[in-house]
Amino acid sequence: MERKGILVVISGFAGAGKGTIVKGLMERYDDYALSVSMTTRKPRPGEEDGKAYFFVDKQKFEETIAAGGLIEYAQYCDNYYGTPRAYVEEQLAKGKDVILEIEIQGALQIRKIFPTALLIFVTPPSAQILKERLLGRGTETPEVVKQRMDRAAQEADGMGEYDYILVNDTVDKAISDAHAIITAAHARPSRNTALMKSINDALDKMAEEK
Amino acid sequence: MERKGILVVISGFAGAGKGTIVKGLMERYDDYALSVSMTTRKPRPGEEDGKAYFFVDKQKFEETIAAGGLIEYAQYCDNYYGTPRAYVEEQLAKGKDVILEIEIQGALQIRKIFPTALLIFVTPPSAQILKERLLGRGTETPEVVKQRMDRAAQEADGMGEYDYILVNDTVDKAISDAHAIITAAHARPSRNTALMKSINDALDKMAEEK
Repeated sequence: MERKGILVVISGFAGAGKGTIVKGLMERYDDYALSVSMTTRKPRPGEEDGKAYFFVDKQKFEETIAAGGLIEYAQYCDNYYGTPRAYVEEQLAKGKDVILEIEIQGALQIRKIFPTALLIFVTPPSAQILKERLLGRGTETPEVVKQRMDRAAQEADGMGEYDYILVNDTVDKAISDAHAIITAAHARPSRNTALMKSINDALDKMAEEK
Repeated sequence: MERKGILVVISGFAGAGKGTIVKGLMERYDDYALSVSMTTRKPRPGEEDGKAYFFVDKQKFEETIAAGGLIEYAQYCDNYYGTPRAYVEEQLAKGKDVILEIEIQGALQIRKIFPTALLIFVTPPSAQILKERLLGRGTETPEVVKQRMDRAAQEADGMGEYDYILVNDTVDKAISDAHAIITAAHARPSRNTALMKSINDALDKMAEEK
């Protein structure tokens, strides 16, 4: 049976290790394609166009929105961030699972357009560790800590909306657990309707031949 | 966080390789406990009590039913087959995932008593291969083939009731896919409510302290 790609959305608390898990999935397995976001933010030193982001100006970004070329987008600190549609659809059609690393509002937008998307939320293994990560090394300004906390609180409210909670205790296990979650999703009956139908048809045909 | 055991029900077409997959899971991983059925059928040569089955007489079986000691049971060819409750509950409490290999009626009984049970249906990779297995080597009596077909037809009708369709193409991959399915189930939000609550509480507390 033909394997259909799954759109996999990975979100999670700051410092939970999303990026490392995504990197690990890409390195270890051949099943995945990584979606690269488009942004109007300026590239930082060393950031290549098309690697971390596609860098465009505001006019180009807004034209892309208008043309329906993004499957989700959001604005932070006067910059746009969005997910180009063409790459995602092209890779899904090839049977690749496409991984998007985006935050919760984006994730919930994706779910509306791709109801079969798989939403994974990455969290540290305990509230204590989350707390340590939010507070940082004690060198952050109170404003930075407050920003992180507000965002974490907002994300925590949305955790239950995700399909899976991926506990990142050790990175190695978190990567293989992420792969297990995606592998399992391919085995859902809703993704095997063609096989189920062909089996039912074959059994009906055998019964007639008797 | 404490790991809670999952009750895993494995069903599937005759010849689909359920037994081999269960054996592989038990050999490769430490997470699983195998439930042994109770039956009134006589042991075959070489069958040890407590290995393939617990062998009991009809009176003992019916007493066990009456005492609520079975989580499901059925009758085939004048023999009873059932799943003893005590072992299942004891292993689940220890955090082990308990594997039951039972047919569809038993599986659907289990789902009613344990709504969180994970139901996996094992199938050959194509209708053609299923057909070959049902027809056998052409040496079976028409009655045997008809029995297999009727059972397969009944099972096929119930496939959509299962949580996962496990395609057994190569045994090695089927075993690791089964493990992936069970691993993923542990990451469902419904099995991580304590962690989610403790994170929410910690964030509320941090917000108060600010």
